[in-house]
Amino acid sequence: MIETNRQIPPDRYLARLAACREAIAERGFGALLIGVGPDLRYLTGFVGDPMERLTLLVVPRVGPVSFLVPQLEAAKARATPLSGAVGVGGAGVGGVGGAVEILAFEETDDAAAMVAELLAPARSAANGSTARQPIGLSDRLWAMHVLGLQRALPGRHFEPASAVLRDLRQVKDADEARLLRLAAQAADRTVDAIAAGRLVGRTEADVSREIRSRLIDEGHDLADFAIVGSGPNGALPHHDASDRTLEAGDPVVLDLGGTLAGYLSDTTRTIWVSGEADIEPDPEFRHVYELVRDAQAQATAAVRPGVPAEQIDATARGVIAAAGYGDCFTHRVGHGIGLEVHEDPYMVAGNATPLRLGMAFSVEPGIYLTGRWGVRLENIVMCGPDGPEVLNRSSLDLREVRG
Amino acid sequence: MIETNRQIPPDRYLARLAACREAIAERGFGALLIGVGPDLRYLTGFVGDPMERLTLLVVPRVGPVSFLVPQLEAAKARATPLSGAVGVGGAGVGGVGGAVEILAFEETDDAAAMVAELLAPARSAANGSTARQPIGLSDRLWAMHVLGLQRALPGRHFEPASAVLRDLRQVKDADEARLLRLAAQAADRTVDAIAAGRLVGRTEADVSREIRSRLIDEGHDLADFAIVGSGPNGALPHHDASDRTLEAGDPVVLDLGGTLAGYLSDTTRTIWVSGEADIEPDPEFRHVYELVRDAQAQATAAVRPGVPAEQIDATARGVIAAAGYGDCFTHRVGHGIGLEVHEDPYMVAGNATPLRLGMAFSVEPGIYLTGRWGVRLENIVMCGPDGPEVLNRSSLDLREVRG
Repeated sequence: MIETNRQIPPDRYLARLAACREAIAERGFGALLIGVGPDLRYLTGFVGDPMERLTLLVVPRVGPVSFLVPQLEAAKARATPLSGAVGVGGAGVGGVGGAVEILAFEETDDAAAMVAELLAPARSAANGSTARQPIGLSDRLWAMHVLGLQRALPGRHFEPASAVLRDLRQVKDADEARLLRLAAQAADRTVDAIAAGRLVGRTEADVSREIRSRLIDEGHDLADFAIVGSGPNGALPHHDASDRTLEAGDPVVLDLGGTLAGYLSDTTRTIWVSGEADIEPDPEFRHVYELVRDAQAQATAAVRPGVPAEQIDATARGVIAAAGYGDCFTHRVGHGIGLEVHEDPYMVAGNATPLRLGMAFSVEPGIYLTGRWGVRLENIVMCGPDGPEVLNRSSLDLREVRG
Repeated sequence: MIETNRQIPPDRYLARLAACREAIAERGFGALLIGVGPDLRYLTGFVGDPMERLTLLVVPRVGPVSFLVPQLEAAKARATPLSGAVGVGGAGVGGVGGAVEILAFEETDDAAAMVAELLAPARSAANGSTARQPIGLSDRLWAMHVLGLQRALPGRHFEPASAVLRDLRQVKDADEARLLRLAAQAADRTVDAIAAGRLVGRTEADVSREIRSRLIDEGHDLADFAIVGSGPNGALPHHDASDRTLEAGDPVVLDLGGTLAGYLSDTTRTIWVSGEADIEPDPEFRHVYELVRDAQAQATAAVRPGVPAEQIDATARGVIAAAGYGDCFTHRVGHGIGLEVHEDPYMVAGNATPLRLGMAFSVEPGIYLTGRWGVRLENIVMCGPDGPEVLNRSSLDLREVRG
């Protein structure tokens, strides 16, 4: 059976908000202020772009949750899954005994002052918090709003809301796992179609446009990135796509991803363009390719609950360093993925966070030979009960493209 | 001659950076810290998405400008137009006597601490600033970076960098005007094609997808938004596009825009779907349409240097209020546009900023009859020496679509 359900049930938002409020209390925070972005989508289902008009979910320790929105967004706020699930301004929130109140403000209102009013001492006491407890700000809130809130709330201490939300968001629930799987496999079909198509004589930019178009056709709502790094451009890990024309004898790094129902895909394959002349990969390229593949496989195999995140990085790095290419692997081996393409947990030296069941992240070692070419292979991996679950289905075998 | 040049000459970045440093001194700031986003693109030409890795242009009052980037982005940073224009780490910056130094950091470095080091008292004195002068943060810098920088720079006072950059960015130079014109007219061709096509029986979402695709075909790099508000959905100014099917007798609000070489388009037309049955617009719709058109025209005609921004809003509002629809015009009449779809100056009550030659903004009055339909008409207007220059070419006549 092919899974196609893109919905997150409204009750799931209730459960997340309840868990969020428990975490606020546990961490000793007074409240969280969550602007438009992935944290807000996680907690409420509200989808939007950040803008100059403040839009803020105010989550105190206990008591009513307020959703402060510009009048223009009020109808949309009332239609969010969370608002629907709790009954706006009415029913209790997931046993926590609150409600979600939509507070719409006009173009000339001072929204930061309204937030300060919501967090005023008298009200705060009723919310079980005090002026000494930090207020958490969502990680992506714009500086213009941060500074405005700090001015409206003098003397209050602010901390990243991720200190509270990280532990919730980095462990994916069943709905999130389903959406990540759908997104990963839509990206797999995209990379497989590109590797089965014609490449010789086309520019990187042209292939990149085809990737973006296919990401959408395969079910993504947005085509977020489509890196095509041919020949020497493959040695730049964050290369985008240039006017360089692909030729027979080029290795090409394809690193692509999009957003499907809010969840990101991120897949990298390195292919070899043999062309009609059937130019074979040279022995060093083959050697490096197999090395990266081995590093990717060993790092993936190391995934299980309790293993420190940095251990996944160290495993891949060990394989590559032992073969003498340590200096050519210039980035961390992976990043968490979910509602953001890069999020906690990061697979990087210094991150001792133990992996937990349901964490999802990339495993993407690479070797970059400046001025020549690069090889990177990337899958999205979830931490299962006894080991890794790889969300991707696209083969890691070296593909030689004739067209 | 059709203008197709999408480039901004490298020297332009030098001139902007020089003007920025003058403004830093004039406003009494110590330095600006500019993260990835429109401010950074404006000053350097660097294009990217904000992320968890800090990327920051550090612009002190005088002396070297530093561009702090993750190692992965160093090659891209070296290739920015500004770096190219000044010679990295070398030549003087536009007569201000500085240079741009690229500082690349590794995955495990503390980037905020590096910024603090650059702004340390001894160095600051050499830069002509003191610890009492505020540090400006780019408006869109993420809270996680704001809080990290505040922690690394205890005791320093932070203000929005827009206090310094607003006056520069809201007046468009000749290159920016050219790109805004290109973008506006690409959006015009898109809306004209939609109004000339088939609509009956299609969902809003389907028409929205066609708009996004045409925005790209007409020359945009990104299709940012494509609102299709048919029938009662037209009464929600921030409606996106739903599964509602368009029928004969529907008014439809089309509000679309994309990014072309960094610059935004934003065009709204309201059309009437007559269908093959040739259903005529009812008299109230015609009346409201002409009213909005008149308000749009009068507000546009009021544009000239020295007129307060709020006067443009008041002009449109006066026309609509006099006809008894004041309560149905629920938003400001316009927003500045450039590297952001909404930016200074805002045409809104309370903004007394006098218009200046080269300011660019939307003029978009609307009337919304809840549960029935809405009408909005929007052009992008620049303030010329003696009056408005309308960047759009698409007709404001009511179009009745048979297909």
